[in-house]
Amino acid sequence: MTSIPRDQWYVAAYGAEIGQELFSRTVCGEPILFWRTRGGQVTAVADRCVHRRFPLSQAPSRLVDDQVVCGYHGFTYGTDGKCVSVPGQSRIPRTARLRSYPLVEQDSFVWVFIGDPAKADSSRIPRAPYLDSPGYTTVAGMEPLKARFSLLVDNLLDLSHETYLHGRYIGTPEVAATPITTEVDEEAGIVYVSRHMDDAECPPFYAESTGLQGRISRWQDIEYTPPCLYKLHSRIAPVGSVVRPDGTDPDAFHVEVVYAITPETEHSTHDFWAVARDFALDDEEVSKFLAENNRTVVLQDVEALDVLERVIATEPEGYQELSVNIDTGGLAARRMLQRMAGAGRTHAGTS
Amino acid sequence: MTSIPRDQWYVAAYGAEIGQELFSRTVCGEPILFWRTRGGQVTAVADRCVHRRFPLSQAPSRLVDDQVVCGYHGFTYGTDGKCVSVPGQSRIPRTARLRSYPLVEQDSFVWVFIGDPAKADSSRIPRAPYLDSPGYTTVAGMEPLKARFSLLVDNLLDLSHETYLHGRYIGTPEVAATPITTEVDEEAGIVYVSRHMDDAECPPFYAESTGLQGRISRWQDIEYTPPCLYKLHSRIAPVGSVVRPDGTDPDAFHVEVVYAITPETEHSTHDFWAVARDFALDDEEVSKFLAENNRTVVLQDVEALDVLERVIATEPEGYQELSVNIDTGGLAARRMLQRMAGAGRTHAGTS
Amino acid sequence: MTSIPRDQWYVAAYGAEIGQELFSRTVCGEPILFWRTRGGQVTAVADRCVHRRFPLSQAPSRLVDDQVVCGYHGFTYGTDGKCVSVPGQSRIPRTARLRSYPLVEQDSFVWVFIGDPAKADSSRIPRAPYLDSPGYTTVAGMEPLKARFSLLVDNLLDLSHETYLHGRYIGTPEVAATPITTEVDEEAGIVYVSRHMDDAECPPFYAESTGLQGRISRWQDIEYTPPCLYKLHSRIAPVGSVVRPDGTDPDAFHVEVVYAITPETEHSTHDFWAVARDFALDDEEVSKFLAENNRTVVLQDVEALDVLERVIATEPEGYQELSVNIDTGGLAARRMLQRMAGAGRTHAGTS
Repeated sequence: MTSIPRDQWYVAAYGAEIGQELFSRTVCGEPILFWRTRGGQVTAVADRCVHRRFPLSQAPSRLVDDQVVCGYHGFTYGTDGKCVSVPGQSRIPRTARLRSYPLVEQDSFVWVFIGDPAKADSSRIPRAPYLDSPGYTTVAGMEPLKARFSLLVDNLLDLSHETYLHGRYIGTPEVAATPITTEVDEEAGIVYVSRHMDDAECPPFYAESTGLQGRISRWQDIEYTPPCLYKLHSRIAPVGSVVRPDGTDPDAFHVEVVYAITPETEHSTHDFWAVARDFALDDEEVSKFLAENNRTVVLQDVEALDVLERVIATEPEGYQELSVNIDTGGLAARRMLQRMAGAGRTHAGTS
Repeated sequence: MTSIPRDQWYVAAYGAEIGQELFSRTVCGEPILFWRTRGGQVTAVADRCVHRRFPLSQAPSRLVDDQVVCGYHGFTYGTDGKCVSVPGQSRIPRTARLRSYPLVEQDSFVWVFIGDPAKADSSRIPRAPYLDSPGYTTVAGMEPLKARFSLLVDNLLDLSHETYLHGRYIGTPEVAATPITTEVDEEAGIVYVSRHMDDAECPPFYAESTGLQGRISRWQDIEYTPPCLYKLHSRIAPVGSVVRPDGTDPDAFHVEVVYAITPETEHSTHDFWAVARDFALDDEEVSKFLAENNRTVVLQDVEALDVLERVIATEPEGYQELSVNIDTGGLAARRMLQRMAGAGRTHAGTS
Repeated sequence: MTSIPRDQWYVAAYGAEIGQELFSRTVCGEPILFWRTRGGQVTAVADRCVHRRFPLSQAPSRLVDDQVVCGYHGFTYGTDGKCVSVPGQSRIPRTARLRSYPLVEQDSFVWVFIGDPAKADSSRIPRAPYLDSPGYTTVAGMEPLKARFSLLVDNLLDLSHETYLHGRYIGTPEVAATPITTEVDEEAGIVYVSRHMDDAECPPFYAESTGLQGRISRWQDIEYTPPCLYKLHSRIAPVGSVVRPDGTDPDAFHVEVVYAITPETEHSTHDFWAVARDFALDDEEVSKFLAENNRTVVLQDVEALDVLERVIATEPEGYQELSVNIDTGGLAARRMLQRMAGAGRTHAGTS
């Protein structure tokens, strides 16, 4: 029984990762083959030859024009997954076709739909436009996690851990000490968690990148659209700075921290992270600093979550966690994910 | 439930591998201890002391004359597996006896019978006399495969993969393009697959070893006796060369490619390979070239099959392959192997 | 179904291993956190935060005075395991408490009680006073074993293996050749195995450390109190030397070899070993020699038992060993351990 929701859109890659060569990534347990056609479209088909299972991403499999030739026996497929050539015979079996995945390239991400393609409504894909907008500069990466995706959801929905796990990077005492407010929009399928610190220490991550000195007003507004897209709207401003009635906010610095949380398997996760800022847009030093610093922070999470996965693997069945106020957002997210996973299961059972 | 046929003969080693020292190899999940007695006979007994399971091949276990002394508590056994000494007492328990395996050394191989020894009819062992005959020169080796034996059977029964996986070694476009003929001799328990190419490119493997230039007539006649012995009778000759009515074939070069496919466990295999030729018998350069080239080809298979084993390990249950004409021989072999495995199972259940 | 007895005392560490810093060890599958308080007491609590399972021994978790602060979200616990601080709120949930383990520091060991704390009667802990007495000098260590604890029990209860596995260290032909006597005190829960050799070769272990030359009288008196404490009372004396009627034994050298056999998991074990002697008390050369030599012997056992664990992992179900006279003590120990494991299971089922 899987805990991974099906019939959902997931980020499989950054668009920049996929060129005119074979690229493979496993999403929700399904190995998927990608390449960018000469026309610029990204193709997503099952990375497993229908004949004897050979991975089409594995050498000596190769791309010839916009067709992939299996490196084992030469079965050849077009961008739609349809087989166009079989060795030793001219007839192509009707069922010789790779599964093809609904795909949308948007906001720098390549999204694929895992589940029943008939349900793939691309208007449901959540947006993160700043990752690909003129008013922002973005640094990004992806770290492999040897832990189930729900541990990363827990982690990101409760930022009090910044104070302890990311102490000299993004955490200060005020993060853990300041209560949160949580809202759940069941209809839109979004969990909101907010923590507004009006007078807080400025952690190195923001002091170095913004140049702010002294104490700050720091807002953390989380917007999580399960299962995959997590956005942290981060506002840093001098203490006392206010948002004007017309919505402008000239003294503040805005950082949009985006995570795409994509299950690789039941017990491993692709941890995509991006940091978009609306200041110092052309300052490469700032870009370099934020990229290195955020990657360090992500790797601190990776190390901790990999440990938790191993702890879970050896704990007795029925072990119970203790939840407190800071977990309100995480628990709401878990409930939504469980409902999604249950719905996918029911469908799988009856279809 | 095992897919490995029992009550069958398997190649455990080359005779040349076994001298007057302890040698262990696992065949069909059974660890077997071999040594060559001072009289020159090869002995095969269970590689596990009856007392506390210590492997008799593991130091400080040792051979003393023609007896093996367990390195843990000193239990000592003769060539027939019978215990002859127990520490701390003079009485030897009647049941203190290692399982002994029926064994035949023949055609350069050491064959053992896995299953009920009462069924070990050595006349059923298939022959490969060229591996040990004056008219031939042979190069040989063994590569460990981290894949189930049936994947190697599939691989060897369908040589169209030579064109893709072994492209610059033994494969040319004609191999995949030329249809095969398949025959199954149910009574003798042999699968035949033939592909005769009358006008084909000569791959480096044969061009270098025979000295032939230009296009060739190339015959591939497979003769597989499940479960273990696979022979590829390969004939290479100038285009237009014919076999005379008296059976002589003076313009042709003959290569006998032999594989012994021995399951080590359910998911690993000993991949024995040998190449016997009837030309350039004393040419060490040719021997060296064929040994290196064939080992490279085998390692290409090993890499591909190891990948397939990992693919199978993660695929959903009930996954279906697609088979086409080139698979006729492989499918026939599978059916025979399944029948053999079923028969062994039934026997195991009722004995 | 576990084979590890519960409701039992086990050695978790040497007292010397635990200082004023976090120390973690898994005992019977339970990860336990230790530290020595500023008052000198050793504390033992579950090494897993009640909130999100983070190991409290894992950086950046840290000890602040006598409280441990979780490195993930800052949950803080006192020496009794009670939570004293939770992030983002002042109320501490009543159930926020780490499991605390009954603990006794004695005879150089830290003993913990695994099971129902109500049953923790510290008077039942077996003693090894020489490990911490003025009349003795002790060398000690611990080697991790990747094998189930019962394999180490088998090993230590049957010393005939010294002749083969530890041939040039502590084994001589007489050990395997001399019959044993075995006694079982069911009430006290002790297995005794004795082997008295009146005229035996002196192995290097004793020749080097005592300076004795020529043949010796060598007594091996085993006293095993399942599950954890094994003592070998070893007496080495010149041939013919006798114990006087008043109990004094002036010509003999006494070595107390102590093992604590602590299951880490079902398939791994902490192999604590100590060698206490009543001679050459201040001779550092002798201490160094005995420490190095005994560690070598222990590592020979570790290598052999790790092999046996792998053998068991691949053997067919229902495999039967053959036992002989030398196994009498080991079989008695197995029976006592099985009874203990069964009792713990029953309790677990009804509590």
